[in-house]
Amino acid sequence: MPIVTVTRRLHFNAAHRVHNPALSDEENLRLFGKCNNPNWHGHNYMLDVSVTGPVSDRTGYVIDLGVLKRIVQEQVIEQADHRNFNIDVAFMHDVIPTSENIVVQCWRVLQPAIAPATLSRLVLWETPNNYVEYSGE
Amino acid sequence: MPIVTVTRRLHFNAAHRVHNPALSDEENLRLFGKCNNPNWHGHNYMLDVSVTGPVSDRTGYVIDLGVLKRIVQEQVIEQADHRNFNIDVAFMHDVIPTSENIVVQCWRVLQPAIAPATLSRLVLWETPNNYVEYSGE
Amino acid sequence: MPIVTVTRRLHFNAAHRVHNPALSDEENLRLFGKCNNPNWHGHNYMLDVSVTGPVSDRTGYVIDLGVLKRIVQEQVIEQADHRNFNIDVAFMHDVIPTSENIVVQCWRVLQPAIAPATLSRLVLWETPNNYVEYSGE
Amino acid sequence: MPIVTVTRRLHFNAAHRVHNPALSDEENLRLFGKCNNPNWHGHNYMLDVSVTGPVSDRTGYVIDLGVLKRIVQEQVIEQADHRNFNIDVAFMHDVIPTSENIVVQCWRVLQPAIAPATLSRLVLWETPNNYVEYSGE
Amino acid sequence: MPIVTVTRRLHFNAAHRVHNPALSDEENLRLFGKCNNPNWHGHNYMLDVSVTGPVSDRTGYVIDLGVLKRIVQEQVIEQADHRNFNIDVAFMHDVIPTSENIVVQCWRVLQPAIAPATLSRLVLWETPNNYVEYSGE
Amino acid sequence: MPIVTVTRRLHFNAAHRVHNPALSDEENLRLFGKCNNPNWHGHNYMLDVSVTGPVSDRTGYVIDLGVLKRIVQEQVIEQADHRNFNIDVAFMHDVIPTSENIVVQCWRVLQPAIAPATLSRLVLWETPNNYVEYSGE
Repeated sequence: MPIVTVTRRLHFNAAHRVHNPALSDEENLRLFGKCNNPNWHGHNYMLDVSVTGPVSDRTGYVIDLGVLKRIVQEQVIEQADHRNFNIDVAFMHDVIPTSENIVVQCWRVLQPAIAPATLSRLVLWETPNNYVEYSGE
Repeated sequence: MPIVTVTRRLHFNAAHRVHNPALSDEENLRLFGKCNNPNWHGHNYMLDVSVTGPVSDRTGYVIDLGVLKRIVQEQVIEQADHRNFNIDVAFMHDVIPTSENIVVQCWRVLQPAIAPATLSRLVLWETPNNYVEYSGE
Repeated sequence: MPIVTVTRRLHFNAAHRVHNPALSDEENLRLFGKCNNPNWHGHNYMLDVSVTGPVSDRTGYVIDLGVLKRIVQEQVIEQADHRNFNIDVAFMHDVIPTSENIVVQCWRVLQPAIAPATLSRLVLWETPNNYVEYSGE
Repeated sequence: MPIVTVTRRLHFNAAHRVHNPALSDEENLRLFGKCNNPNWHGHNYMLDVSVTGPVSDRTGYVIDLGVLKRIVQEQVIEQADHRNFNIDVAFMHDVIPTSENIVVQCWRVLQPAIAPATLSRLVLWETPNNYVEYSGE
Repeated sequence: MPIVTVTRRLHFNAAHRVHNPALSDEENLRLFGKCNNPNWHGHNYMLDVSVTGPVSDRTGYVIDLGVLKRIVQEQVIEQADHRNFNIDVAFMHDVIPTSENIVVQCWRVLQPAIAPATLSRLVLWETPNNYVEYSGE
Repeated sequence: MPIVTVTRRLHFNAAHRVHNPALSDEENLRLFGKCNNPNWHGHNYMLDVSVTGPVSDRTGYVIDLGVLKRIVQEQVIEQADHRNFNIDVAFMHDVIPTSENIVVQCWRVLQPAIAPATLSRLVLWETPNNYVEYSGE
């Protein structure tokens, strides 16, 4: 029975400030430069959510992409779209909102919501020139 | 000797209807929604075909991409381009034409045609927001 | 008062067959080649809808893009998405479903729906390598 | 002597809130919805700057794109990149930071800086699905 | 009778050196910088060829895109693809191979080849961040 | 501690000729076709550089992307941009400049420069339709 990976891409826009509140302002500026702007900046994020599994004989699907889309919209897009990652997004509480941390926190909310299907990979694009990947390791 | 993966991207357009003839019309509509439209719909598909192997000292190639392109055109593009996956495409006979099943059937026709080179991955984009991957498992 | 053009891009998937029922099958095949496949083929269409006008002091908008999106969804996307242009789409009745005719018919349904705002241009992409534009002339 | 339009595309990221301080909070929320989030959101903006003129016999250029890039970086990118349009950007003072107003204000700073060459068009993408154009009218 | 613009996009790869042989090496280096590298550099060019005209009742076409593609391939792509604009391309003889001059020379070879249909616009992308347009003026 | 892969995409333009000097001109032409043009051709290359590692508690980063960008610019972009791979680029000395060999040589210069961080993957796009990947094996 073939094992296929299916991916749904979704988009959202958000503001953030890369800032570690445990450090001084000087240290934050030195570490994060313009990404530390206290008045925020923002991005058009693009999230690729991948599920891996056998192809059902009955449907020809690994997972219904409409179902997968609804899960991601509820768990991630409705929380983060047109929001501020440092202030508004519960799943980012107490975490520096770098792409690395955003993708890991997305995994933590999406993995149980997608189970028993197998979330296998998240790719998060922050700009057209940089992206991060996480596979739950 | 370094092992490199090379990929050739090709495009084709096709119609399909996601439909399982073993099920009732009601069940098909419930399972597949608008993708079950009896009058068909269609997509611009994009297929990435990857071959992995050592780099030849003589050519600097893993495989001549012109040769790879011709194989994919013969085996997949000429069969599927401007066609209907449910009616016209021999390698899709008796298979529900979801992206998952299309990518697996493409593997089955491409793997022997590309051998002894090693087909390592197929990625099939159905729309700009969803794609499937298969590596022969 | 500055005059700005704003554009909203929307996507839909549809099947079609380029066929003129007033001509013989032989003539249709000669004129349209593989686009005349009697079993249909299809595309991921991308439609850019542009409205031109003064920028409101009150809102900073030419038109609320949410409103524009809803109009295009009602008038075009809900009619054409996951449908067959030759069979299912009322605004394409009795018209050969080439990109040229699709974009002109979209204008005819969108222009009155968007008025009194000024629809200024439609761009319809049929594939990543070809598109048509219409400005109501 | 042929008249050609040359375009340089540049990228920047910024936060904003669509808000008219002359209106009540309720009216702002009604008009702007989630774009009115008091904690901001943001975008990866893409700006296409077009200059039109005769092609120089000496250089084959309408304008040296390196010079054009430096002007846009000084006048727009250094002001807006990783900044907040409502707070940090001098050329947006007292203007609701919609795409329409951003593109008009960019024109006002770029037109004199590019003269005597002729700025002919600005296109500003806010997301992959919406953009605005301004030609100085 | 509606007037529509149809566009076909084609791709080619070429080498060039931006160099004016009437000037000294020092002046060339000062004017063109790294684009003047005597050992050449190159680009993946993308050319959008637009034809404007009435939509035929018989075909629903402004022009058969297959015919348009063949003309562009013969007149431009076969001359320029995998070639050197300074050495190999007859239509660039005695012209500095900037994008501006390439697009104007493409017009001069394409306009008569496409007539009596009306070539209305050429857009040539040199990189993902710069492009030129010419409409025959 | 989560292990994340971060990727920075960079662009450069270069000329090359696919040619093996150990073979006859006839054999080169037979093997490489138009890619063997003695007058060169060129591409807009796009390089994705991936680093894998744990996410720092202090910064939320796997690696500072500004640092990664500077390393790639020094080691690859400044050597190859607007250059000729056969003549100008030291790290390509005595190697046929196919994409496969370019990506392996980029690995050899980048891996030590990025250490002790872990370079995990390079992806090099030569055109929009073909790319190569290397992971150091």
